[in-house]
Amino acid sequence: MTYELHYWPTIPGRGEFVRLALEAAGAPYIDIARGAEDAGRGVPAMLRTLGDRSLRQPPFAPPFLKDGDFVIGQTAAILQYLAPVLKLVARSEQARAWTMQIQLTIADMVTEAHDTHHPIATSLYYEDQKAEALRRAGNFCSERMPKFLQWFERILSQNPAGDRWLVGNRMSYADLSLFQLVEGLRYAFPLAAERVLSRTPRVVGTHNRVAAQPRVAAYLRSERRIAFNEQGIFRRYPELDVPAG
Amino acid sequence: MTYELHYWPTIPGRGEFVRLALEAAGAPYIDIARGAEDAGRGVPAMLRTLGDRSLRQPPFAPPFLKDGDFVIGQTAAILQYLAPVLKLVARSEQARAWTMQIQLTIADMVTEAHDTHHPIATSLYYEDQKAEALRRAGNFCSERMPKFLQWFERILSQNPAGDRWLVGNRMSYADLSLFQLVEGLRYAFPLAAERVLSRTPRVVGTHNRVAAQPRVAAYLRSERRIAFNEQGIFRRYPELDVPAG
Repeated sequence: MTYELHYWPTIPGRGEFVRLALEAAGAPYIDIARGAEDAGRGVPAMLRTLGDRSLRQPPFAPPFLKDGDFVIGQTAAILQYLAPVLKLVARSEQARAWTMQIQLTIADMVTEAHDTHHPIATSLYYEDQKAEALRRAGNFCSERMPKFLQWFERILSQNPAGDRWLVGNRMSYADLSLFQLVEGLRYAFPLAAERVLSRTPRVVGTHNRVAAQPRVAAYLRSERRIAFNEQGIFRRYPELDVPAG
Repeated sequence: MTYELHYWPTIPGRGEFVRLALEAAGAPYIDIARGAEDAGRGVPAMLRTLGDRSLRQPPFAPPFLKDGDFVIGQTAAILQYLAPVLKLVARSEQARAWTMQIQLTIADMVTEAHDTHHPIATSLYYEDQKAEALRRAGNFCSERMPKFLQWFERILSQNPAGDRWLVGNRMSYADLSLFQLVEGLRYAFPLAAERVLSRTPRVVGTHNRVAAQPRVAAYLRSERRIAFNEQGIFRRYPELDVPAG
């Protein structure tokens, strides 16, 4: 079965967390909104599905995944759905719940990273909320980023199976998401992120271990990987990169 | 087995979504942080667990639940863990995933409702970010609240089992969470919420159906139910209640 991934075609955004899981597992998928419109793909195809009044379970927003007739949205829910098939989560219910809990905490941090440049409204330009963005980014860099990254460091250090992976002794989708989070933070906040990451060596170690997975490494070199840019969640606005102390 | 719920004792907050599920199912639980300190409960007991270096799966923040030795945080993850035991979710994997997807969208809206009064930093007072709050609340009331509530209306109307409940033909934890969301919106934004809810009659219907469940109704009349107040997620600041159009 070939999965269909539906997400905005020009940014990594939240779709990238799903794409990484598909790529790391070598799963066949079509990136619908990046396809050609004259082949029935592209953004119009994504929006058609999103607005389809015949869907019993219509997603709220991209990213969403189609697996045959089944459609599922919300990044963490998509990953939880895919993970057992892709072998990106342990089998026990408790391990699945713990992996989900970590993923949801990563998602919270992603939302907060986004809101550094859009603290007032996603529908407004950055330039129209820049004063507010400066204040929010200052707090994010000095308080929130250390708090979140130190928690990831802690759960790695308290993992009874060792500090290589977040859950147990195998890579899960949460490790892939942590990799992407660190990539995004380093892109958007190069100074602040390095300051914090220098104190969270286990987070950096897991990031590096993900990047070295053969399928992941090949994907990162491919054209399928979309570069960070100033339309996405992680944006490099130097004025928002405020390392603490 | 008596569950332990750990959450701040003076606000409904995110803990209320878990408490509602426990109450609606008649499940035995102890509200740890609301207990007496000299009985080994209260906020210090919650913080002791949160900081416990021997935990293999330490939660990032309250709310979290203890079920014997198992500890789980993140509201949506807690609910997904509890729901099969409490019979608050259908059995099929696809129904469980759909219920989770709805819950995560409710959680996104809850975060946005919170950020209307704290658009810059949770660690600052409202008064120190009031100008920014006015802008963010205006956008929330005019764009985001209608968008979210219309999606809930749509999924009720597209539910093949009828529009009484969000998933299938039985109440799930997502219905309980939608009830609490509507309660919070009506408290915080009485004018704006009524304006939008007048156009989402199915959402109001499901809300009323939850409130009429005997266990829920008894709980809402009890002292266990914490009233909304200006320390929580949903706060009544009249200046932030800006009905659109």
